This record gives sequence, structure tokens and C-alpha cells, in this order.
Amino acid sequence: MRFRRIPDETIRRLPVYFRALLFFAEQGSRYISSSSLAELVGLNSWQIRKDFSYFGGFGTRGVGYEIAELLKQIRKILKIRTGQKIALVGVGNLGSAMLAYPGFQIYGFEIVAAFDNNPKKIGKKVKNVKVEDVAKLGSLKRRRIRLAIIAVPCEAAQNVADKLVNAGVRGILNFSPCYITVPSTVKVITIDIAMDLARLPYYVPGSVFAEW
Amino acid sequence: MRFRRIPDETIRRLPVYFRALLFFAEQGSRYISSSSLAELVGLNSWQIRKDFSYFGGFGTRGVGYEIAELLKQIRKILKIRTGQKIALVGVGNLGSAMLAYPGFQIYGFEIVAAFDNNPKKIGKKVKNVKVEDVAKLGSLKRRRIRLAIIAVPCEAAQNVADKLVNAGVRGILNFSPCYITVPSTVKVITIDIAMDLARLPYYVPGSVFAEW
Repeated sequence: MRFRRIPDETIRRLPVYFRALLFFAEQGSRYISSSSLAELVGLNSWQIRKDFSYFGGFGTRGVGYEIAELLKQIRKILKIRTGQKIALVGVGNLGSAMLAYPGFQIYGFEIVAAFDNNPKKIGKKVKNVKVEDVAKLGSLKRRRIRLAIIAVPCEAAQNVADKLVNAGVRGILNFSPCYITVPSTVKVITIDIAMDLARLPYYVPGSVFAEW
Repeated sequence: MRFRRIPDETIRRLPVYFRALLFFAEQGSRYISSSSLAELVGLNSWQIRKDFSYFGGFGTRGVGYEIAELLKQIRKILKIRTGQKIALVGVGNLGSAMLAYPGFQIYGFEIVAAFDNNPKKIGKKVKNVKVEDVAKLGSLKRRRIRLAIIAVPCEAAQNVADKLVNAGVRGILNFSPCYITVPSTVKVITIDIAMDLARLPYYVPGSVFAEW
């Protein structure tokens, strides 16, 4: 089932809620108020209540939302399930950081294949994943890997994206500092690690920075 | 000047627009339609028009928005200016990727200090930045560095945050897979590189994944 009427911006916040709800569940909580959740994730509580209402999440006054139920709903909507196989292209610093990152597991993702074009890296293991030659991206089709992370320099990104699409990849997380174009049947999310930093000065009192 | 009534979610999208507008400007465009912009950044054009209306950005029918004017406004709101000094704490894979990342420059940021607790790293240069002992975080006050990136393991994040706050840091971009708490005068943006990946399966046709 797809919940087609959920706005993309709500979808974007669901992983944020998911992670926070897991955190509260680990602390032993069964119920959570929208205001406690708001405080942890840095969003407004009305926004959270509105987002939850899209999938029939209605809290009980004085009790709040049942954490287990919310987690179940978000899992269903985002199709979070264990054993989702991901391919990584580009085993530089950023790619290596991803292979070592413990956070993917929360959402059921596992990076099971890694590719690079550097002969010194090909054949070596990074965090238990053997680095393969990027020329062999085509093997993803046979291995039924449909999601990929691109962490290559700008110049190489479009070429890698084309090869991934040809190999049957249908979802791409693009960490290269470039836009890539793909057929409309493929979803690309482009991430720029500088963008989040770019918001910070807005929230920091103006007196801190000398005008020039 | 602060534009206090601009919603946080709009602020979050401004760096996305900023980068896309620079891209169009580099291609030689002077005007841009909300629909072209929408296509590049993957948002709805009505959302973009609404966001722009918060700061008096009104396009001309048949012509679109003037790119230079939009860039100027966004720069003003986000306080994007050259020479914004940033400290990085944690020079592991992710931290090293940040030191090498060309994208910070677009927003006027420069990582001018890097800290780690590993004696093997202290004193070495990574991308022209000398790695300092994390015990010396207090020097940030004297150096007037007010923004920092945390890229340390979960267990160390809160301790690092406390020291940064004591050293006068007022804005933190937290890449550790943990929540941190700071006084209300300090702004923290916590980023989880897995969260963006978590949205992908939602957009990928269900048939692709075998149910189990």
C-alpha cells in the first residue's frame, strides 16, 4: 500500500520521527507527547500532530501517542524492512564513512556492495565489504540490488548514475556535489552536507559575526 | 535584520534554492521559472512560489524570477557571507570528507580548525588544516570561532558539545548518530546521513522488494 496523499515534506520528516521514537522506546517510554517529541527533534508540535494525522495517528489527550503504534505506521509507510541491500559507488573518505556508519541499520539498510575505480582500492575490504571494480556495476541487476549511494566526484556522477540505472537501480542517494539526471522512473535524492550548515548562521545572533 | 516570520521549513529549503540558483546563473541564465527550479531540486513549484513570497520574491508572468535578486535575498536572510570560520571536531572518515568537501565554499564557510583525540592524528595536516588536540577546544573563544561541526562517535558527542558551548560556540552541526543537549542560546542541527536514504524506498515501486 502506498499512502499517496502524504506530502513529500511529511515523508522527509518521518525518518526523523522514527529515529526519535526509537530513542524514547529505548528509554522505556510507551507513550509520547507531541511536545516532548518536538523538543527532541527541533520541530513545532503542531507540525508533528499534523504530520501524524496523515496516517491516522491521533494522540489521546493527557496520554499522548503510543510509540509502538507510531513506529509500526512509519515502518509501513516508508517500507522500512530489514535486509534492504544497498550498493555504494565511491570508496573515498565519504564512502568509507558510510561503510562505517552504524545508523543505516536502524532503517534496515545494509551496504552489501562497494565500487571504486582506484586499482589500489579494488579487491580490498572496507568494513567487511570487498571493493569491486566500478566497471562491474552491471552485476547489480543479477544481484537484485535496487538502491545505491553515489559518493564520487562531481565529474563522474552522471556517468555512474547512467550505469546504475542501466543495471536496474531505482533509487539513488546522491552525495556528489552535482545534480544528476535520470529517467522519471528512478528517484534521486541529492544531499549536500554543506546545506545544513548553511542554515546555522540564521539561528545564531547577528552580533556574533563582524560585518565587513 | 532577522526575518522572524519565515517558517523553519522554508529556511531549510533556502540553501537548496541557493545552490540551484547558482547553478542556473553559471549556465548563463538571468531569469528562472518556479517550474524549472522545481524540476531541478525536486520540489513542487507552488511550494517554491510560497517560500519566495516570504521575502517579497514575486516572479513576473512569462519572465520568471530574477536570479541575481533571489540570490541576494537568500544571502541576506541566511547571512551567507565569505570567511565564516568553522571548527571541526573529529577527523575520522566523515571529518576528513568534510575537510575535503568543496561544497562549503559556496556558502562562504571555511573549516579553519580541526580537533581529534588520536595522538597519531594530532599535529598532522589534513587538507591544509593542522589537527589539534581536542583538549584545546577552549582556544576557540580567543579565535572567535562560533560555529562547529561534530563528527565524533556517539559516546563522545555530548562531552564535545559541552566544551564547544563553554568555548563560546553558538551553532553546532552534529553528525554524530546521537542527540545532544545544549543551552537554549545555542542552535544544534543534528544530521543523520541514513535519514535521507530512509525516504528512498517510499518512492521506489513496491514490486521491487520481495516481501518476506
